[in-house]
Amino acid sequence: MDKSGLTEHISQQFNVELEDVRNKVLTMGGLVEQNLRDAIKAVVDGDSAICDAVIHAEEQINKLEVAIDDEITRVLARRQPAAGDLRMLTTVLKTITDLERTGDEAEKIARMGIKMASIENERIRVPFIELRHLGNDVRLMMSKSLDAFARMDIQTACEVIESDQEIDEEYESITRQLLTLMMEDPRNVRRAIDAMWIARALERCGDHAKNISEYVVYMVSGKDVRHSSLDEIAKAELEDSVSS
Amino acid sequence: MDKSGLTEHISQQFNVELEDVRNKVLTMGGLVEQNLRDAIKAVVDGDSAICDAVIHAEEQINKLEVAIDDEITRVLARRQPAAGDLRMLTTVLKTITDLERTGDEAEKIARMGIKMASIENERIRVPFIELRHLGNDVRLMMSKSLDAFARMDIQTACEVIESDQEIDEEYESITRQLLTLMMEDPRNVRRAIDAMWIARALERCGDHAKNISEYVVYMVSGKDVRHSSLDEIAKAELEDSVSS
Repeated sequence: MDKSGLTEHISQQFNVELEDVRNKVLTMGGLVEQNLRDAIKAVVDGDSAICDAVIHAEEQINKLEVAIDDEITRVLARRQPAAGDLRMLTTVLKTITDLERTGDEAEKIARMGIKMASIENERIRVPFIELRHLGNDVRLMMSKSLDAFARMDIQTACEVIESDQEIDEEYESITRQLLTLMMEDPRNVRRAIDAMWIARALERCGDHAKNISEYVVYMVSGKDVRHSSLDEIAKAELEDSVSS
Repeated sequence: MDKSGLTEHISQQFNVELEDVRNKVLTMGGLVEQNLRDAIKAVVDGDSAICDAVIHAEEQINKLEVAIDDEITRVLARRQPAAGDLRMLTTVLKTITDLERTGDEAEKIARMGIKMASIENERIRVPFIELRHLGNDVRLMMSKSLDAFARMDIQTACEVIESDQEIDEEYESITRQLLTLMMEDPRNVRRAIDAMWIARALERCGDHAKNISEYVVYMVSGKDVRHSSLDEIAKAELEDSVSS
């Protein structure tokens, strides 16, 4: 094999490795998404079998995080990735942290769901429908974020970043309802607080989805948008398209 | 300059760069620690000038995060760090995310403190002393974590990881007190919920400090302890010392 053939061979192998990292992230993301779905179901149905499944899947998610971390460190050490590839790898390092923490929240939600189901003689009308709505919206947000990651799609990533505002509004509306329930009758307090933690955990998952989308924008464009407004991103994109 | 001289020169420059990254992280950590201290003060004293200072410092923290991120990407692209150096750089990428999120929590705590101070005619006896205790313990935990980072000190890092349990207990005790206050009198609900968010945010800061200490263990030993128990870490350390 001549030298250029060897270089090509190495570069092909490198591409395989990068593709493998990306696929593992998507597998991990799929598990997290499924766990969010199951956790919401555990809350609404109070089904402890679902909760067990969530806890089991959470272990797999943790193992995947460690495996991807190791793989990225190996790839960084062996190849000398530059520009886009390097950005992809450092971005993935951060993405999997947010995925793992979403998995943690899903587990907490499932456990809280089971706890709530086990307490009888509670009179409170928990806003389950609103919690399910919030949960589904957050899951959709995570799903779109992973899509944006898979397709390196800035447009979708920006939509996700923007939708975090709606999640926050939904969350605040649930909090207000629960506050009212607590003030109406002190016997509602304990259960309403549990429901509040669930809403809060879901809102956090929305934040993680937003973080991942911000990483996607950085990965694709090289622009760090974590502490800028969407207007600034849109303006920068417009300037780029005008100047190119 | 002969070749070995050049190599040495490059390696010296690389060390300067690594040292610079480490120093920036410690500067960022110092700001985060100060912000935690101020945020707790804002809650206890209800002083809105402190709150403004926290918000201002939070912007500096965000800028430092982006700057360190950029610097690490540049160092990774230019040098080809291996083993320990590479581990240090990928670990710092994660550490600064936890620092930045601690900064976010500190800002939320300060804002909530001001909100609570502005609401008059509230009869509730908020457990300020307990909140201040929790806040100080969390700040100490973060401070020890940064010390462990600065001195590459596994022992201190393990102490931090272990102390998270105590933080969780303190947090739960405050939550129980607040629940009782709410059940005693519905007029306490709104203010007690605010205090609960502050306690929760502090508990999160403790989690971030724990995460940073786990990264320190990984950075120094190459062992990923995020999803293992401290017993496992101790056992592995023991086996290492026996086999070496």
